[in-house]
Formats: sequence, C-alpha cells, structure tokens
Amino acid sequence: MRGVFITIEGVEGSGKSTQLLRLSERLRHLGLPLVVSKEPGGTALGRELRRLLLERHSSGETWCADAELLLFYADRAQHLETVIRPALAERKVVLVDRFEDSTRAYQGASGVSEATLDRLSELVLRGLRPNLTVLLDMDPEVSLQRVEVRNLSLGAEFAETRFDQAALEFHRKVRNRFLVLAQTHPTRVAMVPARDPVDQVEVAIWARVAPLLRSAGFVVD
Amino acid sequence: MRGVFITIEGVEGSGKSTQLLRLSERLRHLGLPLVVSKEPGGTALGRELRRLLLERHSSGETWCADAELLLFYADRAQHLETVIRPALAERKVVLVDRFEDSTRAYQGASGVSEATLDRLSELVLRGLRPNLTVLLDMDPEVSLQRVEVRNLSLGAEFAETRFDQAALEFHRKVRNRFLVLAQTHPTRVAMVPARDPVDQVEVAIWARVAPLLRSAGFVVD
Repeated sequence: MRGVFITIEGVEGSGKSTQLLRLSERLRHLGLPLVVSKEPGGTALGRELRRLLLERHSSGETWCADAELLLFYADRAQHLETVIRPALAERKVVLVDRFEDSTRAYQGASGVSEATLDRLSELVLRGLRPNLTVLLDMDPEVSLQRVEVRNLSLGAEFAETRFDQAALEFHRKVRNRFLVLAQTHPTRVAMVPARDPVDQVEVAIWARVAPLLRSAGFVVD
Repeated sequence: MRGVFITIEGVEGSGKSTQLLRLSERLRHLGLPLVVSKEPGGTALGRELRRLLLERHSSGETWCADAELLLFYADRAQHLETVIRPALAERKVVLVDRFEDSTRAYQGASGVSEATLDRLSELVLRGLRPNLTVLLDMDPEVSLQRVEVRNLSLGAEFAETRFDQAALEFHRKVRNRFLVLAQTHPTRVAMVPARDPVDQVEVAIWARVAPLLRSAGFVVD
C-alpha cells in the first residue's frame, strides 16, 4: 500500500495557490499524513535552480531552451528522489503545485517537441504518475488580468508586468495543451472550471479528491 | 567550412590544464582564431551550475544521480548553444577542457546506464562530435598522488583531500571507461600516455592536432 499523489495544474492566475491551501487545510483538519510541495523549488537545491530559472542573470544571459528544460527535469529528479517517493513510501498524501503537466504545457508551447518531452519524462519519472491531477481551467485573458491586479496591488514597481498580446497568445497555447492533456488522460486529469466562485471550485475539487482518498483507505468523512 | 572542435579528457591529475595551456599558447602564437573553454562552467550560468554541482550545499543536501546528470547536460546544452556552436560557425578552433567523454566516464562509473547516457547525449549534442579528443591516459594511483601533492602545497587545510582506497577504485573505473571510449572511437580519440615528461606529451598531442588543423585549411607551420 502506497500513499496518494495529487498534483494541481493550470495557467498563472487560475487560483492554484488558493485551492491548494484550502485542500491542504482540509486534509490537515482530517488528520491525514500530508506533504505539500511545489515545482520548481520543492527542495533546498531546487530553490537554487528556481532562482536560476526565474531570475534574469545579472549578465543578461538567459538559459537556452534545452538547458532550461534539463534544469526543470533536474529539479524534478531531485524532488522525486528526496521528497515525493519517500513520502509515498510512508503512505502519505502528497500534494504538489505544478508537476510534469506544466512542463508539457509550458515547454511544449515554447516549441519543445513531444518526443523530447517523452524521452526526459520516461528517464526521470520512471513510470510514476500522479493518482490525480486537478487542472484548474481558465481563459488566460481572465487569469492574466487577475495576476496583473495582484501585482499592481503590490506596488507601482510591478506595473511593468502588465501582460501584452504575445504573453496572451503564449498562455492560450499553454491552456490548450493543458486541455489536450486532460482529454488524453481522462482518468488521471480532472478538469475543473476555475472561473466559478472560489467555494464552488473547492467543492468541485473535493468531489474528485475524496473518493480517491477513500479508495486508498483514508477516512475523510 | 566549419571550425575545428578539440576536447581534452583524462582523470584528475593527468596534466590536462598544463597541456591545454601549452596547446592554446601555441595556437595563439600561430595566429589561429581560438576559443578556449571548459565543462562544467564554460558560460556565466554554467559557472553557477558548477558551483551547485561541486560545492556541498550548506544544508548538506547533495544532488541525486539523475539530477546531477541532468545538470551536467543542462550546462552542456547552454555551452553548446552560446559558446561552441557559434565559434565553430565562425570557423574558429574550439578547445574544451572536458566534454561528453568525461560525463560518460565519470557518470558511467557512478552507475548511470549507457542507455540513459545515449539518450541525453542524442538530445543535447544533436549529432555534434569533437573532431579530435585528446585522452591523457595515466594510472590513477599516480595522477591522484599528483593532485594530493598539489593540494598539500596549497596549505594544510587541504590535507583532508588525501585520497582513499574507494576514490582510487572509482578513478580506476573512470580510466577504464576512458580507454573503452578510445577503443570504440579510434578515429576521434587520440590516446596519449600522460606519464611521459611534459614536453614529450606536448609533442605527442601536437602530432595529432597539427594534421587535423592543416586538413581544415589552417596554416600551422
């Protein structure tokens, strides 16, 4: 008997953090053994990679597409080895903010081929797949506005993050890739409309999580 | 017409740095367009990876085998994209201290499978191979003693780097893998006995490099 592995996915501004917090609080309240993590940056070394990936280097140098992809998978390998697999072996519920599907959606939308993604995925995951992936689906035009409002509320210095047409086009591609992943893996991926009120989204997620936990032998009522 | 890509390989203490310096000074003296680099750490971002790979993290966490391997290839992808391929396209002589064969020898000796190495190699190199690989071959029992003497001369704080039996066994495996690579790719890899006097090693290397440069249209006399 192993633990239960749940990932949460979606475009920026789709409410992942809010829903992850609500779900993890509910599971803690129920007394379930829980590990909450995220990618990139779920390990100490991963946080250094996250910094390398997300910050622009002082020299202005950025990672080429192949290097960036390999860094994401290095982070995933370390995360799997030191956090996810040990927690599953201890029969815990593992909740991760972004995982393989984000790489497939974002790097795929950036032009990385399916063959390359398949190859790295096979190498790093070694057949491990989440028991459930919650996909928070939202039109990027709405979700990016949410992110914009959130950033603006943090102060004027973030005003330059205002999204442009190119960003919107890119996130539309990302969303479509997420939707294709949901269609390709209908048993694993639960698509949840994320534009609904936050309480309603929480209920929809719980309706998918509760039966899974029950079937794994956890008491959730 | 492209440039010429030369890599230099061997176990620690085999004299790579000395010979790379001598060769690069000779090529500069001849007025050849030259790029000298190394792996890991041939780019600004690569130096950050090198730090992550070579330094022990403050938390004591180390990279798992898969993550380490992927970081080496991320460094290689960035190095190829921003340094090696552009220099070759400009018809330069590119001299690199450690490359693919080091990964094959060291990670292979650490237990990474040939299939995994083949897969990543194909993904990242996309068929690019050095025109010549100089393999400085030496018994690790001798080369590690050299490293030890060098470290001791740097001060007492390095005394703990004294190699043990396990390190020697590991480096013997690495050496054997280098020798197998030389046998598998006899046209590309030039095995040079590195225990000979340093001037003699330099002459042996030049005897392999000069004809290659001539055949690529460079004047080396």
